Amino acid sequence: MNALAPLLEFLAIPSVSTDPAHKEDVRRAALWLSERLRALGFTTELHETPLHPILYAERLVDPKAPTVLVYGHYDVQPPDPLGLWTTPPFEPTVREGKVFARGASDDKGQLWAHVAALEGLEARVNLKFLVEGEEEIGSPHLLPFVRAHREKLRADVVLISDGAMFAPETPTLTYGLRGLTYLEVRLKGARRDLHSGAFGGVAPNPIQALGWILARLKEEGTGQVLIPGFYDRVRPVSEEERRLWPALDEEALRRELGVEVLPGEAGYTPLERLWARPTLDPNGVWGGYQGEGSKTVIPAEAGMKLSMRLVPDQDPEEVAELAERYLQEICPPGYRLEVVRLHGGRPVLTDPFSPPMRLMARALEEVWGRPPVYAREGGTIPVVAELQEALSAPVVLLGLGLNDDNLHAPNEKFDLVNLEKGIATLRRFHQLLAAQGLGHS
Amino acid sequence: MNALAPLLEFLAIPSVSTDPAHKEDVRRAALWLSERLRALGFTTELHETPLHPILYAERLVDPKAPTVLVYGHYDVQPPDPLGLWTTPPFEPTVREGKVFARGASDDKGQLWAHVAALEGLEARVNLKFLVEGEEEIGSPHLLPFVRAHREKLRADVVLISDGAMFAPETPTLTYGLRGLTYLEVRLKGARRDLHSGAFGGVAPNPIQALGWILARLKEEGTGQVLIPGFYDRVRPVSEEERRLWPALDEEALRRELGVEVLPGEAGYTPLERLWARPTLDPNGVWGGYQGEGSKTVIPAEAGMKLSMRLVPDQDPEEVAELAERYLQEICPPGYRLEVVRLHGGRPVLTDPFSPPMRLMARALEEVWGRPPVYAREGGTIPVVAELQEALSAPVVLLGLGLNDDNLHAPNEKFDLVNLEKGIATLRRFHQLLAAQGLGHS
Repeated sequence: MNALAPLLEFLAIPSVSTDPAHKEDVRRAALWLSERLRALGFTTELHETPLHPILYAERLVDPKAPTVLVYGHYDVQPPDPLGLWTTPPFEPTVREGKVFARGASDDKGQLWAHVAALEGLEARVNLKFLVEGEEEIGSPHLLPFVRAHREKLRADVVLISDGAMFAPETPTLTYGLRGLTYLEVRLKGARRDLHSGAFGGVAPNPIQALGWILARLKEEGTGQVLIPGFYDRVRPVSEEERRLWPALDEEALRRELGVEVLPGEAGYTPLERLWARPTLDPNGVWGGYQGEGSKTVIPAEAGMKLSMRLVPDQDPEEVAELAERYLQEICPPGYRLEVVRLHGGRPVLTDPFSPPMRLMARALEEVWGRPPVYAREGGTIPVVAELQEALSAPVVLLGLGLNDDNLHAPNEKFDLVNLEKGIATLRRFHQLLAAQGLGHS
Repeated sequence: MNALAPLLEFLAIPSVSTDPAHKEDVRRAALWLSERLRALGFTTELHETPLHPILYAERLVDPKAPTVLVYGHYDVQPPDPLGLWTTPPFEPTVREGKVFARGASDDKGQLWAHVAALEGLEARVNLKFLVEGEEEIGSPHLLPFVRAHREKLRADVVLISDGAMFAPETPTLTYGLRGLTYLEVRLKGARRDLHSGAFGGVAPNPIQALGWILARLKEEGTGQVLIPGFYDRVRPVSEEERRLWPALDEEALRRELGVEVLPGEAGYTPLERLWARPTLDPNGVWGGYQGEGSKTVIPAEAGMKLSMRLVPDQDPEEVAELAERYLQEICPPGYRLEVVRLHGGRPVLTDPFSPPMRLMARALEEVWGRPPVYAREGGTIPVVAELQEALSAPVVLLGLGLNDDNLHAPNEKFDLVNLEKGIATLRRFHQLLAAQGLGHS
């Protein structure tokens, strides 16, 4: 496949946006992509931000032709734990029809399908690319950029591939995303580390207190989040929507995760819990001695990363407020608790049958030989809500990844058949769009 | 002071017994001490073990003279977190009458007082030294060594300085120590790290589950340990013993720890909680992403170090069994829990008024100008119970450290006045012992 060699180059760049040590690599990824787009006749602009640059590119052929805006991100998650990768995260390797590398699926591989689809394409469509390097840290600078450049970004449809198909060989159109609130919680006890013999019995222990706090955040028996008001704005799923949903193969999911039960909020199916219910998960915890053997210390501090996935109509800022207030309330006496808000993103619902969704459905059916299923996704793409609102344009979420792509985990991969059919689908979409337009009423 | 220069040499050796990288340094500390004892006329033997050597030394002057066995340890705790040390842990530095270094108080400084006390001492006392390099990891090889060498170790009194005085300028005789059970708990959920968006709502989260487990180990409101049977063998404190106890300055303790409350088991005074009540403390916790910024991961594993301080008549093995059984019982469905037993030590009570205790009380009063107070200690010295039993000899616990010595923490220190008066006290003890004997009935 012609598209593979350049993708391997793209994946070899360790553009880890959260790690200051990789700042130059993130920039290098933006420049690499900019070169590729220029070779396809685009004009490109690198917009500097206080952190990582935003790449904007356009190729305008006819003011009367429909305009497509493609969004993607060239940054990736940190690769740790490194020891669990079969091949190094930034030495992309093809095995059994898949390319393994950090960012293979999230999002370099999927973004690259949109670029590769334009190779030799003859279709009167105006194209714009908006590509950021801060998606994995919550798009702090993209959102103001979108608000400040509505005119430049104006489009008839927004295309985004940064998600997964419902199942292998199952073309999927996504019409919903969860939002996110991500906090860091730091807990302080005594003013210095203490010997657990000399002081055990009178010393605050921030690790123990984190345990009490975690138990009060989420109920063990029911899996319910206990933050007051947390569920207040959750929109229930209509019967009509529920009928649209495909069946989840729970047995396959259990096998994939290597678990016997799928723990979660009582009273909801696993699919509803993934797509339409909010969650709370600690994503990291630390404190005291983590080395080999034993150390009899009561640490002065402990901490955790804590995130909540949100659904319409929850608001990330409001949920962060509720969580912060509750955390302070349940912090046991004798401890000082600090909350740092790391990032957030609003949840999204779009019309599954908008005109561009119908066009993409046709392109998918032609390429895959079967009509798409309609799905929500549990993940978050912070910019989607913003683009939808700022541009008043319909968004098409075309996930090309798979749920076993190991996003944010060791051995991330992207199936080459999805790259190939993704490219074919996008080419077909542009041709259909040029031929038929969007039928604006 | 003549005794200071060699102590600084001793402290400069990074004899961290828990860290395999320091294996040679631990050995170096044993050899250094062996040299010093030989210079004082001792014969020395280095007994190899699978890990760190045991140093045995003796200087026998007269079969009819009383025999003293000194126990100490030449290994030290790990020095992390390194960033919090004012001067490096293995570059001993004297400031304001204190020597700062890892091991300054625990136990190199206190052990050194026993060696320095012999310089030029003329007293007909047989002396034996038993010094190990594995105290900080639970003395796994010393205990079998003691059992196997009862005859060689036979003594009329065992002297140990590896603890603290009750308060500054307050000579203290210690007659009780807590025991210890130290476990590592590992919790596994899914078979790989998962994206918290794609799987949040169906994925087990070992960090959350650790929280639930911690909350079920120790009750938030009362501070009670909830392991069934945990308190069954705890011996209540008699009224007679309670009258022996000095008053604890709780205000000073709060100030020292930088806390407004002294959290602990409801219904007991802080002093009783420190000396005569068992405790449970997590000493370390880890899982998921601990770096800068955010990573939206649900980790496959999390873990913690968990220790319990025990009091007579609790048994470390039995408590480990109880804890392990309970941990498996409260492990939520969908998780696999593993327990690794790291080490343990039995609690100790001795007769506060045994003949050698009375002699040491007199020596203390002569040197410090005031009679000693009688105290228990919250810490653990695993070998004490063993020596007491194997040798059937009374043990004198003469703590020369202070409670603010930062044991097991950054900026460990030892007050030079305690070194000096400790040396004088021990010289006087040997002289009194040679002159009066122990008055065996």
